[in-house]
Amino acid sequence: MPETATYWTKPIAEAVDTHLRAFVDDVAAARLGVPPNLADALRYALLGGGKRVRPVLAWCACEAVGGNGTDALPAGAAVELVHAFSLVHDDLPALDDDELRRGKPTLHKHAGEPMAVLAGDQLLTLAFGALGEPAAGGRAIDATTHRRLVAELVAGTTGMIVGQTMDMGLDTPPGDDELARLEAVHRGKTGALIRAACRMGAIAGGVANDAPDPRLEAVSRYADAVGLQFQVVDDLLDATATTEQLGKAAGKDADAGKTTYPAILGIVGSRALARDLAQRATDALSDLGPEADPLRRLSRELADRSA
Amino acid sequence: MPETATYWTKPIAEAVDTHLRAFVDDVAAARLGVPPNLADALRYALLGGGKRVRPVLAWCACEAVGGNGTDALPAGAAVELVHAFSLVHDDLPALDDDELRRGKPTLHKHAGEPMAVLAGDQLLTLAFGALGEPAAGGRAIDATTHRRLVAELVAGTTGMIVGQTMDMGLDTPPGDDELARLEAVHRGKTGALIRAACRMGAIAGGVANDAPDPRLEAVSRYADAVGLQFQVVDDLLDATATTEQLGKAAGKDADAGKTTYPAILGIVGSRALARDLAQRATDALSDLGPEADPLRRLSRELADRSA
Repeated sequence: MPETATYWTKPIAEAVDTHLRAFVDDVAAARLGVPPNLADALRYALLGGGKRVRPVLAWCACEAVGGNGTDALPAGAAVELVHAFSLVHDDLPALDDDELRRGKPTLHKHAGEPMAVLAGDQLLTLAFGALGEPAAGGRAIDATTHRRLVAELVAGTTGMIVGQTMDMGLDTPPGDDELARLEAVHRGKTGALIRAACRMGAIAGGVANDAPDPRLEAVSRYADAVGLQFQVVDDLLDATATTEQLGKAAGKDADAGKTTYPAILGIVGSRALARDLAQRATDALSDLGPEADPLRRLSRELADRSA
Repeated sequence: MPETATYWTKPIAEAVDTHLRAFVDDVAAARLGVPPNLADALRYALLGGGKRVRPVLAWCACEAVGGNGTDALPAGAAVELVHAFSLVHDDLPALDDDELRRGKPTLHKHAGEPMAVLAGDQLLTLAFGALGEPAAGGRAIDATTHRRLVAELVAGTTGMIVGQTMDMGLDTPPGDDELARLEAVHRGKTGALIRAACRMGAIAGGVANDAPDPRLEAVSRYADAVGLQFQVVDDLLDATATTEQLGKAAGKDADAGKTTYPAILGIVGSRALARDLAQRATDALSDLGPEADPLRRLSRELADRSA
């Protein structure tokens, strides 16, 4: 994200980091008995930087429905734990075989493959534990809301794994043409967890538990547009940025002969699609007031990000 | 388990299989969109036989506190999904590198390593989804009970992963001597999930949500004894049974130079320990009435099992 974006989301990302660090120390290690080396592997995968896009989305979605962003920290932490698990497992030699992540060796290069498999499993398990742990200064989560958050996290994580099986060619994405199939892959691989982040933020922010809430539908439509936008921009960056700018290997998609948006639509067409998706994201929020401005700003800035 | 045990637990195991099969078809595939090849991998890992020891324990613990065993099916299914995930990942080349499981090729031999990693992740994710899905004929699970079940599953799964990191030599088990360290490994690797199964069964069966319930403590003590007993018997079988009897490689522990109960205590000493643990399990239930007889019977029969 550009500096302006970093500037205003930085306090949120810092609150997320503080919450995640306390969760690993006080819950995972102290209460659940995660031993030192495994805990270090969790910290390495979880606390090594990253822009916390998903928890920031959860925070802003929470505020968009009138909640207090702090109440979205458990949901944001859970989604970030799932995101971290997915990076660790996707980087494994058996899957994407990546050696570099956020400018550092991937966990299996750092701590070995057995630890990477187990730490990924542990991160995923802890994601469900994080849903029950309120942040300092946040509201306790009532049982009904907790139950909804669990269901959303199951759906989001499943969508993500499904997207990865399709991206790996293990299952066939639905769709009549190359663009539809590419979209199906990304709706899973990137979109499902972004959708979960936004919906979980709104649920933590107090959308109705006992009736359909149009604000939750608005946030879901927003999330679907932003999730796809995020992937289009990712493909654009992979095609145009350097490894140094990204902190991970660039040009890898083309090298691997993978279908990407630039490969199908070209650079200019992909940029136009990213801006169109940003517009769709904004349109989805038309019935929400100024409390949804941070969500609107995020989708604009995600379209312009350079890393 | 001997034939007599198989006889009386068989209807429970069949109810578990029916519930798990419906869960994969109706929830994972139909509702959550798990595509065909991934769903097949889940079924291969989950429905390929097995005695369903953990769901049977959950069922009997539910009845031991006066509940209806059917109400423990969601908890039992969740624990079995975690068990299945752990077998798939533990069998991976990076971990135990096993090629045979329940007399069949392990999932990574059958469907490839990428699918095995992803299917394991999916099984673990679905375990948390299973907690919210009542069985046909079972009670709906109230939100407070659901929340407790999630917390128990997080604790049990974490304990299991921790035990595996210790067993792999990635973390150091606590304890002053070899026997204490071996016990620490197994309290995690096998015990934690058996404890979760029993506690979750009792919670689903209606132990108090708002105050400590001595019946839950009794079931927990029972579970701790049975969990260790289970591992002692496993070690004994590995040392004395054939590969054909076990449906997985026998003598593997000794070949790998692993510490086992027979290696420390000898065959006779290990058998005595197994019987002592069965007694401890029975003693833990002394304040419970005849509704706990199935739990008592299970621990007696686990001590005598031959596969």
